[in-house]
Amino acid sequence: MIRFNIEIPDQGIANALREKIDNLTKPKGSLGRLETLALQVGLIQQTLSPALRHPINVIYASDHGIADEGVSKSPKEVTRQVIHNFLNGGAGVCFLARQHGFELKIVDGGVDFDFPPIPQLIDRKIRKGTRNFLHEAAMTEEEMEQAIRYGADIVSDCHQEGCNVISFGEMGIGNTAASSMWMTCLTGIPLIDCVGAGSGLDKEGVQHKYKVLSHALANYKGDGSVTEIMRYFGGYEMVMAVGGMLRAAELKMVILVDGFIMTNCVLAASRLYPEMLSYCVFGHCGDEAGHKRLLDFLGADPLLHLGMRLGEGSGAICAYPILDSAVRMINEMHSFQQASITKYF
Amino acid sequence: MIRFNIEIPDQGIANALREKIDNLTKPKGSLGRLETLALQVGLIQQTLSPALRHPINVIYASDHGIADEGVSKSPKEVTRQVIHNFLNGGAGVCFLARQHGFELKIVDGGVDFDFPPIPQLIDRKIRKGTRNFLHEAAMTEEEMEQAIRYGADIVSDCHQEGCNVISFGEMGIGNTAASSMWMTCLTGIPLIDCVGAGSGLDKEGVQHKYKVLSHALANYKGDGSVTEIMRYFGGYEMVMAVGGMLRAAELKMVILVDGFIMTNCVLAASRLYPEMLSYCVFGHCGDEAGHKRLLDFLGADPLLHLGMRLGEGSGAICAYPILDSAVRMINEMHSFQQASITKYF
Repeated sequence: MIRFNIEIPDQGIANALREKIDNLTKPKGSLGRLETLALQVGLIQQTLSPALRHPINVIYASDHGIADEGVSKSPKEVTRQVIHNFLNGGAGVCFLARQHGFELKIVDGGVDFDFPPIPQLIDRKIRKGTRNFLHEAAMTEEEMEQAIRYGADIVSDCHQEGCNVISFGEMGIGNTAASSMWMTCLTGIPLIDCVGAGSGLDKEGVQHKYKVLSHALANYKGDGSVTEIMRYFGGYEMVMAVGGMLRAAELKMVILVDGFIMTNCVLAASRLYPEMLSYCVFGHCGDEAGHKRLLDFLGADPLLHLGMRLGEGSGAICAYPILDSAVRMINEMHSFQQASITKYF
Repeated sequence: MIRFNIEIPDQGIANALREKIDNLTKPKGSLGRLETLALQVGLIQQTLSPALRHPINVIYASDHGIADEGVSKSPKEVTRQVIHNFLNGGAGVCFLARQHGFELKIVDGGVDFDFPPIPQLIDRKIRKGTRNFLHEAAMTEEEMEQAIRYGADIVSDCHQEGCNVISFGEMGIGNTAASSMWMTCLTGIPLIDCVGAGSGLDKEGVQHKYKVLSHALANYKGDGSVTEIMRYFGGYEMVMAVGGMLRAAELKMVILVDGFIMTNCVLAASRLYPEMLSYCVFGHCGDEAGHKRLLDFLGADPLLHLGMRLGEGSGAICAYPILDSAVRMINEMHSFQQASITKYF
């Protein structure tokens, strides 16, 4: 597989960052997570005056063969319909992107539909949907390799445009099912604790989904390596996101992590390159069953707990102003010396 | 006491609001708290297209006689020093206000310092600090009446300027001590669970603070009514905030609630007028001991949990973009019909 050169940020600047933060006019530690975030971004950027530039949310979209087994409340055609909604500015992620100044990049990684050429839709279609992993591997090795590369190269483009903070979202009917398979195989957490309602299954629907995924797990005879699990059960959009995250970490960008599916992509990416976790800011804990457990497994402490489960990058973008606050804090707040305030700690 | 005419929002529009929210292009409920917030703001404003206008954060500042007993880590002079920092734009609340477009109004409600005339500092000084409630009532009935009126009238001014969403902050060395007294007296929760570190007391400091407040509680011989508790232990800035909140509810403004001290002001205000709670959005759960317990007592589910404990309105303003997202959601997202998407629930 394509190699990534990911470094843990040099800690040499950490003390100077802490000292600057502790000298701002507030009781020590009283801005809580803003302070730890400022430290993290300062370390990533290796500066006492970090800055967030040109935020972009990349949405990778693709269809899933497993959707044929009725594991989602939504019919497959919803994938392409929602892409049109992205392009028309009417989707959930669109108003959030406008609110917080995010550029949206929409990538067709493997939607089961022949789009006419659309300038704003980035065509990286690998195949019209993955194969059905109940019976066979979702993708070939070549397809996975290509998906990693496509996902990564789009992030290189973002970086070239001046972006240093990026979030990833997805659209793909069936992708919570695929994510549950990654989660159980890569963490050892029992499948039952990894399966949820997705876009809105009722109790019976979740039971059926669990049954289908149990069969898929029983049918699977691979070697259980990270890349093989990714390939066998993954969606093209998920593998692209893994490639995108790894490239972002390589380029020392801040990665804002969205919900259940994107957290599974962090899981896979960090199993390949644990260093990439230094670049991740977990945006929110979503309402999909398994997300909290997965965040705990990763030792992640997400910024928001708003009961969201839309995907698309929505939870990550929602959390962006908090990251922005952290950066503004370290740049804009006056020190005790500047403000002539008695340092009371 | 001055009367307020506070109405619970008419629920007649609730079904239409829910229907509009459920018809936006997302799985039902998948935007979590954004959906419940949109409903709340729609009810407050009695419209399917709510809007947030001219947000203002009012900071009431005052000194406390109880500070003489060493209940705070910070010396009293910090109150006036921080006010200068507000005016110079260097305080924590300042960068947050700039980030989210809040106007700041700084009110001297009773700081123990003779400021020269400063145009941006609103002079409503009642007295140079309250009396020491270890030995006597912090304020007279006339002073409390005046503080309520002053606090309320500033909110009327805000409303006249076009503001329909408001947060309140405070500055006053000693005011977590005063708040702990309100909390224990108005909720019945034992004092020990209401006392915390404030601006940074260590374990011994908290023990001393608890001891002082226990004596104050033992010395108190009043009738235990809400207004008497407010008067006996309160700070001028806290009573002003109660007046401000009640006027804001009367004027059907959205109230964004900050941390421990401001939540105690909601407690007092809602004991006088329970209807005012319909107008409150709880911004965050802070790190001050007792805040979570108080929020639970009020049945409040705050938006953020970021371990903040700065006061000044900082936690409320930090939460504003989420409220803004909710309002944008209901106005900007396309419906299933508009977007020609199969309604998949």
